[in-house]
Amino acid sequence: MVMNNNIKAEIFSTGDEVLWGDIDDTNASWLARKLRESGIEITRITCTGDRLEDIAGIIQEISARADIALVTGGLGPTSDDLSAEAAALATGDTIVLNQKALTSMQSYFNKRELKMSDDNKKQAMLPSKAGVMENFFGTAPGFHISCNRATIFFMPGVPREMKPMYEKSVLPQIRDLFAANTAINSSSLISRFKIFGLPESKVGSRLKDFNDHFPQLKLGFRSTIPIIEVKFSTISQDIIKSQKQMEQASQWISSRLDGYIFSNTGLSMEQELGRVLASRKKTLAVAESCTGGLIGSMLTDVEGSSDYFLLSAVTYSNEAKIKILGVKPDTLMAHGAVHEQTAIEMAQGARRVAGADYGLATSGIAGPGGGTDEKPVGTVCIGIAGDDFSKAYRFNFSFGDRSMNKKFFAVKAMDMIRREVLKIS
Amino acid sequence: MVMNNNIKAEIFSTGDEVLWGDIDDTNASWLARKLRESGIEITRITCTGDRLEDIAGIIQEISARADIALVTGGLGPTSDDLSAEAAALATGDTIVLNQKALTSMQSYFNKRELKMSDDNKKQAMLPSKAGVMENFFGTAPGFHISCNRATIFFMPGVPREMKPMYEKSVLPQIRDLFAANTAINSSSLISRFKIFGLPESKVGSRLKDFNDHFPQLKLGFRSTIPIIEVKFSTISQDIIKSQKQMEQASQWISSRLDGYIFSNTGLSMEQELGRVLASRKKTLAVAESCTGGLIGSMLTDVEGSSDYFLLSAVTYSNEAKIKILGVKPDTLMAHGAVHEQTAIEMAQGARRVAGADYGLATSGIAGPGGGTDEKPVGTVCIGIAGDDFSKAYRFNFSFGDRSMNKKFFAVKAMDMIRREVLKIS
Repeated sequence: MVMNNNIKAEIFSTGDEVLWGDIDDTNASWLARKLRESGIEITRITCTGDRLEDIAGIIQEISARADIALVTGGLGPTSDDLSAEAAALATGDTIVLNQKALTSMQSYFNKRELKMSDDNKKQAMLPSKAGVMENFFGTAPGFHISCNRATIFFMPGVPREMKPMYEKSVLPQIRDLFAANTAINSSSLISRFKIFGLPESKVGSRLKDFNDHFPQLKLGFRSTIPIIEVKFSTISQDIIKSQKQMEQASQWISSRLDGYIFSNTGLSMEQELGRVLASRKKTLAVAESCTGGLIGSMLTDVEGSSDYFLLSAVTYSNEAKIKILGVKPDTLMAHGAVHEQTAIEMAQGARRVAGADYGLATSGIAGPGGGTDEKPVGTVCIGIAGDDFSKAYRFNFSFGDRSMNKKFFAVKAMDMIRREVLKIS
Repeated sequence: MVMNNNIKAEIFSTGDEVLWGDIDDTNASWLARKLRESGIEITRITCTGDRLEDIAGIIQEISARADIALVTGGLGPTSDDLSAEAAALATGDTIVLNQKALTSMQSYFNKRELKMSDDNKKQAMLPSKAGVMENFFGTAPGFHISCNRATIFFMPGVPREMKPMYEKSVLPQIRDLFAANTAINSSSLISRFKIFGLPESKVGSRLKDFNDHFPQLKLGFRSTIPIIEVKFSTISQDIIKSQKQMEQASQWISSRLDGYIFSNTGLSMEQELGRVLASRKKTLAVAESCTGGLIGSMLTDVEGSSDYFLLSAVTYSNEAKIKILGVKPDTLMAHGAVHEQTAIEMAQGARRVAGADYGLATSGIAGPGGGTDEKPVGTVCIGIAGDDFSKAYRFNFSFGDRSMNKKFFAVKAMDMIRREVLKIS
């Protein structure tokens, strides 16, 4: 991938609550995405707790490796907020009352008709050589320093204070600092293909020559079971040439994963099924047994789903299958709840009671209990009904985990009705 | 807290998808919590991408600072999975086919009646001096090596494979390695209270004197909207004394958060509602509109839910509300779908068609579209019906996000039926 811009950036999160796992480090992932959008390569993310020497030591390490460092946390008024002191220690500077920081804080308090306490004044004590960055949504001002090859930006740990400070103060300064660098003015192109029905190892092996064909592009995989995302991207100054490469790579990947790609625009299965139904003005009703409402819940996560989603009847009991969906008692007697014929009658029933174009049904055994020799845990029957046809399939997929099985059954069922509506096998 | 053990541990997450912020590093926070529960101090978390030299370099850095390193990611079958190679590079070792790893993978495939591909075999290529750790829920075996002062454990990046490997293989080995250390042999006592209905800042301020009363205990909060977990813990060699402190802390917290704690054993809302229904041998049927099947899906994530959960009818359209649930057309005409009377009739209908003891219904506006002045986004009506009563409530909660609103509506509805069954207001 073209990332030969030579600007190296690192992210450094401070705070015991992050180090100890009491909160996830969402600041780091947010900043990482923002940097990449600007064409800047991230090489490392580090996290440590509220100890002065550890923070100062890591600032020094980073300053020798990176051009830009984004530090979050440790700007508050309490005794475990150590970032300013650590920055001074790392650079051999001293802490002084920064008049600009004090004025900025004073204006924050005045606007809210609040009184500034002496504890807050600690937040205006910064390294003497620091530049101040205003905090629009909190009391702690940010600051930046130079250290070895790096410019280091210190921001609050509270996301709603950190994010606007990054956008309004940090990013413009990064652009100024590296204005001569082409990469920062370059474009990032990303494509995301979504795959269902092939395990990650097979997706990987089918695409293993990718880099031989497209050395300028970067390929990545992300598995959120049961979906695999194949992402390929480039950062480039020559947008026309890059777009052509991306287009060729799309075709190459499509031919290698033929039949398994359900979206080439990064949509989820429920978004794609919704798109397919909406574009054809078709409606869907679902009867769920083993998926327990998951299909309905996933479909209705999509805004505008009321245009095509009419009903999900989660009929766990046989009585509900008979009374609500009109499944024949004889069918349940002869075959049981988990059977192709039952799934067909459930799909027909859902379609009929809701007045939908299509009916979809799941009946199976999510486990861990309930399996038999004939119908082990992981067995699922999926029924599909339309205007002039109905059919059902039986599969066995078991992941040894109830909610994983439910998820797989739900996505499989959505994929089958998607294929039905598109008339692809 | 007692943490004077001198064992230093670091966590190292690998993978472009984490470095680039495509996913949050929840593995690191989970491992950090687990290590602390065992009395082990974490000093640093590092993350880098899928580049061989970067990974090998960081392994060397960590091996000079820490006694234990937990590495996640990079064990898959694709070309960007580089952990084994990096471990060999860092320790001057070579990669060889590990027979034990191959056998363990073979048994994984055999159990599932799957065929192992040549690509999978790459996953059994490990440093010659590595010890193998079995993966119970996936193909990639883990391994551990010695490097400088550190024992380094390499685990998969997929959380459902990593977590059992940590519990079953890594932790027992850490206990063996540091058996002489007092901290690791001490007992960790943890209590988890689950809170619904108070924002995190209010929970925090009600408990702000905790450390004055219980200086030996550690208090933590974890917010998974809309639920707050209050966790308090201690690591101690004097188990009797610690148990007494924990008991006193339980009472103190219970009195401060009276009415908002729905579980003092760490159960989720759906588990707790299931427990309450099952213990009273009562059954539930749900009619969902704005929650779109989420209540059914959450309830059926709990094993054994078929004992008390009979039906969820996800009736998005008015037609489905009328035909399936018997909501009166006049009610819909006069009041619309989002109204107390509609919610009552939906709850009664679900109860009746399923033959359940209780009926529960939601109708509201999850957004972002569909709001009006009278019924803005975030409005939800919750209906409850029993043998000899029915009632409904209207609330407005809006989080500016469709799936967040759905989640809040679902948990609020489950909490209300839980209170109804328990006869608490």
